[in-house]
This record gives sequence, C-alpha cells and structure tokens, in this order.
Amino acid sequence: MQEVLNFLKMNQPRFVTELCEYVRYPSVSAQPHHKQDLAACAGWIHRHCQAIGLNSRLCPTKGNPIKHLAHLKAVEAYLKTGTELPCDLTFLIEGEEEVGCIHLAAFLKAYRAELGCDAIVISDTGIPSLKHPALTYGLRGIAALEIKLQGPSRDLHSGIYGGSLENPALALCQLLAKLRDKQGRVTIPRFYDDVVPLTAYERKQLARLPYNEKEYRKFLGVRELSGERGFTAVERRSARPTLEINGLTSGYQGAGSKTIIPAWASAKITMRLVPDQTPVRIFKLAERHLQYLCPRTVRLEVEPGHGGDPYLVSPSSPKAQAALRALRRAFGYEPVLLREGGSIPIVTDFKKILGADALLLGLALPDDNPHSPNEKFSLDCFEKGMVMGAWLWQELAKA
Amino acid sequence: MQEVLNFLKMNQPRFVTELCEYVRYPSVSAQPHHKQDLAACAGWIHRHCQAIGLNSRLCPTKGNPIKHLAHLKAVEAYLKTGTELPCDLTFLIEGEEEVGCIHLAAFLKAYRAELGCDAIVISDTGIPSLKHPALTYGLRGIAALEIKLQGPSRDLHSGIYGGSLENPALALCQLLAKLRDKQGRVTIPRFYDDVVPLTAYERKQLARLPYNEKEYRKFLGVRELSGERGFTAVERRSARPTLEINGLTSGYQGAGSKTIIPAWASAKITMRLVPDQTPVRIFKLAERHLQYLCPRTVRLEVEPGHGGDPYLVSPSSPKAQAALRALRRAFGYEPVLLREGGSIPIVTDFKKILGADALLLGLALPDDNPHSPNEKFSLDCFEKGMVMGAWLWQELAKA
Repeated sequence: MQEVLNFLKMNQPRFVTELCEYVRYPSVSAQPHHKQDLAACAGWIHRHCQAIGLNSRLCPTKGNPIKHLAHLKAVEAYLKTGTELPCDLTFLIEGEEEVGCIHLAAFLKAYRAELGCDAIVISDTGIPSLKHPALTYGLRGIAALEIKLQGPSRDLHSGIYGGSLENPALALCQLLAKLRDKQGRVTIPRFYDDVVPLTAYERKQLARLPYNEKEYRKFLGVRELSGERGFTAVERRSARPTLEINGLTSGYQGAGSKTIIPAWASAKITMRLVPDQTPVRIFKLAERHLQYLCPRTVRLEVEPGHGGDPYLVSPSSPKAQAALRALRRAFGYEPVLLREGGSIPIVTDFKKILGADALLLGLALPDDNPHSPNEKFSLDCFEKGMVMGAWLWQELAKA
Repeated sequence: MQEVLNFLKMNQPRFVTELCEYVRYPSVSAQPHHKQDLAACAGWIHRHCQAIGLNSRLCPTKGNPIKHLAHLKAVEAYLKTGTELPCDLTFLIEGEEEVGCIHLAAFLKAYRAELGCDAIVISDTGIPSLKHPALTYGLRGIAALEIKLQGPSRDLHSGIYGGSLENPALALCQLLAKLRDKQGRVTIPRFYDDVVPLTAYERKQLARLPYNEKEYRKFLGVRELSGERGFTAVERRSARPTLEINGLTSGYQGAGSKTIIPAWASAKITMRLVPDQTPVRIFKLAERHLQYLCPRTVRLEVEPGHGGDPYLVSPSSPKAQAALRALRRAFGYEPVLLREGGSIPIVTDFKKILGADALLLGLALPDDNPHSPNEKFSLDCFEKGMVMGAWLWQELAKA
C-alpha cells in the first residue's frame, strides 16, 4: 500500500497535466454543436484508460458518450506499482450528467449482467472543506405538480361583477396558504407517514457540519431563516421533506393596473421527499388534499409533473463505514456525514437496476461553482481524492 | 307640453337620420389618427346645436374636443314649438370619454363660473330593459395597490436550500389569504367603518331589478356565485366594497417545472369602495394591515396605485325624485333604482368642481355591447329618451 501512495505522490505533477488535458475538452452535453467535442473527450479517456492498463470500451448510447479522474489515478498507482487490486473494478464514465443522463438507465439495463457489483462509488457530491471529508449518505427525491383554478369563462370587469363571484387568484392563495401550518409543516394528511425519522446518531453527525447561521443568512440574502419547527436549518434543507411554490401566475402582470377578476390562477409546486416517501404516493395524497380544500366556486385541475425517489444508505452499514475509514486516512481528519437536499436521479437508477448501494464520495468544495461559468476543482482535493480512492478499494474489500 | 311631445313624435324619422349622421363619424379618441374625425364630429354637433337654436360654442382643450343626442332633441322640441324651457340648460358635449376624460377636470375648473348649475344630467349608464327605466344613484370608487414580497437575493435551488428559508410565493399566498374571512368580508381593520349602510328602501329597490341567478351564472361561466354573506349578488356587485386580486406573479411561469425558491412574489390588488369610503384612507388601512400581517422572513413593499371616490345621490332627494317622475312618464313603467359597481371618474369631478349632484340617466340596454365592435343603441331607447328629456326639465324645475 505504501508503494501505491508513494506512486501517487511522485506522479502528482503529471496527473495535474493530464487533468488539464481532460478538462480542456468543451464537453457541454446540453449543446448539440459540442457533440464532436464530447466524442473527442470520450476518445481521450478511452485511450487514457488503456494506457493505464485498464480494459476499456466505448459504449455508444442514443445520446452522448457515457463520461470522470481521481479514481482512475488511484487505480493507475495500483497497476503501475504491480500492487494487486483488492477487488474488481468497473469504471462507468458518462457524458450526459448535466442534461439528466437520459440514456443512462437504458444503458444500465442493457449491460446489467456485466455491471453487476456489490457497491457503487460516485463522486458527484461535495465536502464542506478539506478538514471535513464527507460521505453523502442521503438524497432527497421530488414530486412536481401544477395546479390551476378556473373561475369565470373570461377575465371580468372587477367593477361591474366584483363581489358577486369568486376571484380565482384569491381562491388559489387561500388554497395554497393551507398547505403549510404555523409549525412550518406540510398539512397534507399522511404526508409524513413514510418519513424515516432521523436517528440520534444522524442528528449528531449533521450537527458536526461546519455551519454559521449569520454567514448562511447573508449568503441567501435573507433577514431570517425559517422552516419546520424542531429541526436545525441543516436538517431542514437536507433531511426533511418540503413543499415549495416554484411559480405563481394569474391575471394581469404588466405595468400599472387592470381592474379584472382573472379567469384563472395557477401555481407550480414541487415537494422534496425523504426516505421512504415515494413520488407516486405523495402526488396522490397531495391531489386528494387539494381536491378536498378546493371550494366549489372554482374548478381545480391538478397536473402531475416529474418524480424522483429519495435515496439513503445507512451510515452504519459496513460499506459506508469502509468509505468513512478511507476518507479519514486520505484527509487526516474525522469525516462528516452529509445528506444532500437535491436529487441525483442516476443514484436511484443504479440502486433500482443494479441493486447495489451507492457511496457518494464527491470532492467538490463549496466555492467550486458547479455548473457555473467559473466552475473549478481544487488540486488539493484532486490529490486527496486519489489517495482516498487508493484506500477505498482496500477498505471495501475488507467490508 | 303636449305640443312638445307631438313635435318629438312627428319628427322621429328625421331624428333617426340625424343620429345616423352623427354616429357615422369614427370618433375614436384613443387613436391619434382619428383626431380629424373627432374635429369633424365636433363641427357637426356645433352646427347642429346652432340650427336647433342653441347658443353653441366649441371649447378646445389640450386633448380632443369635449362631445353626446337624445337630450338635444328634447330641447329642439321646446324651441321649435315655441314652448318656454322651464329652466336654463347648458350642454357639455365631450369627446374623450373612452380614454378617461383626462382634460375634462381642467376644463371644468377653467369654466367653473359659466358652468355653475343646480343639477347635472349624464346619460352614460344603462337600463335593465325598456320596462325598467332606471336612475343610477350610486357608483363605486376604487383604491389600487401593488405588493411585493422580497425573499432571498436571487432564485435559489429548492433542493439545496429548500426547507431552510421562507418561500416568498407561499408567504404571499398566506398573506393574501388572510385578507378575506369565511363570511367573504375584507379583514382589514376599520375597512367597513365609513360604509353607509344600505337602507331598507334601497334594498327593496335593488331587489326589484330583473335578475335571474341561473342566467347570470351561465353568463359569467361559473358553477356558483359567492361573496359577502348577508347580501344579494346585486347588492354585492354594486353597493358593497370588495377586495380583488387582479394579478399574481412569482418565479417560473413557463412550460414544465423549475425547481426554485423564487426571489420574490407580487400581487396587484384593487378595492372597490362605496360611500363614504375614500381611497386615501382605505389605502392607509390596507398598507398598515399588510405590514402587520407580513412575516419577518420576507420584506414587504406596498406601492399605491390610482384612486377614485365613490359617488351617491340620495334616491329620496327632490332632484332624484324628479328624475324618477320623468322616467315614469316617458317609459310608462315604474322606474328602478340602480347602483353601478364600476366608477365614472367625471361624476366625482362634477361634484367636486361644480358642487352639484349628477343624475345618471343613461339609456343603454344590457345587450348594447358598450365599447365593443358591435356597440349599438336601440331606437326605442332613443325615442323614449327624448320624451324623458322633455319631461325632465319640467320636473326638475318643480323640484
């Protein structure tokens, strides 16, 4: 093992050069005119894997080639130093991450047998700082819907008719207002039924995360935080379900005023889910409650949107514990446990199709600006990531 | 008087020809390219008044010439038959009605002395049917405002941050929802303080109006009517104050969904006022209540919009009673008393500047489509209107 670690240390300058080569490809999968760049990038990683000594294959899907580098370097160190890899590894490098990996599920199904494994390692999450290496053990799911309240058959003059019929915009406000109580809880009956409560261990771990309320408020641009009573801000934004209005539309929206009773009013809503809530059940519960709350003076239409399952791997499971040990060894600090408030749809795809848990061991720092023009990646993290990768296979093999 | 009425009857075909000449002018004051048509129309009515025997003057204002015909014909009958007019009459014919008569107030102030009078007759309202000649004795006023709730400094990812801070769209809904109670009443404290209650006489008169709830619902396109408990639909839409949301705007409004916590949410609101509410006081009460209701988790901005005073002339006043007698004589039916839910800003201008009450004796039928492409005017109403005009001066002189 020492040889592996030495190899990584000695070859760090070359690895940085290679990283530069790799990230120079303008592989923007959302833009069709970058299709050739993506293909070139896939070719580079393919040749690179072969040079390391891996058995590499390019698998075309209906979309862009499936594409990542620190883990590869850890393996290179094993192979180049002649150290036996403690387990079999399959690297799946895909190129559609930022457009939702629409072809990955089909790919997983097609290559299910070949991809069969005991654990999956994904580095798409983040760490709070170099002193806080992290295992992300949970992700929230999502259930989206759109509602529309239809009032009169057309916008009506509020002077001539106002007072004699329902105003759909006010009806919508009264309906939506009822979806959250004074404790900041979602009022949909049975909404919390399937929520797996946070354990004392989890709450203690989440409380260890570096967090400064004043700085967080400043970052968001708000005077006060708010949310479900009885939980910390960190818990609320990652480990508790929510209901958010993403958009409101009704009547006149231009400058000045237009004295109308709008014909209709609509809202876009998403609910973030936590294990074991499911989008299908939550959508049903929400729809039923909205129908129940809707007054007879307007007509309610509820349209389902996209859904995504939440994800959780027990932090006390042997594989999670193995990952924590690898993090501790590579970074030299006690790792923290994280839950991510957003969703990574492929994680649930992996679980559903391959039946294996995913260890989310991302290396992004809070100021890396993911998906932004000045996206960056710290070389410290790159180095520590390679070492973590090297230890990971040892620890997982033991687990 | 019989001679006057005979003259009107005998000359009806000629009057219709003249009405056709008059309405043929495309006098659309909102469109600048019709400026010449308006001038030509003003010239025609000026020459017509002189031909009748009236002392006519064209008074240019900063906008389009100030313009209306049945009343003129009634006077022509007096003058042509040599019957003494029972009172002095000044006709004010203006040409900006459909764009808000923006120059009329200035005109009234400039010619205040010359225009001094005991009563003003305006024919801009309607009658339910030929069997229901009507005096409109009240108009609602208006107070407009726009509110905005500012949340975070930018739209935020609802996955990463959702649960830890207020959603301004949901806060707006909860705020606006509180503005109306279960009885359909506006909850702003002291909102109803200045409302002059409907008298038993008024309620009885309003109940006489032809009204079919099923037809009205069908016309509006709603399954059920609603509004303030304890009042009929006719009362609610004309003689009770209201609060309406005219528009809602927040977050994402395009197709599909965008998983954001919107940075802000806004609403356009108008309140219809009845005597003796004033827009200034109601705006203050509304603003204070909104500030009181607003949670500390968002920042509230309230922007005042336009305001207009409500109007009421007592239906039992001598002049109103004179108008009712003239209506009864001309139409041969017991007249009804109406309150109009909308506003006619010039009516309050007349009252404020000239100090005289206005008798609203319009002749439009419910299917006349005012301000629409197929606007029409019934010849029956034209005829009855002339006779009503002839009686009106007699009755007003006695009042």
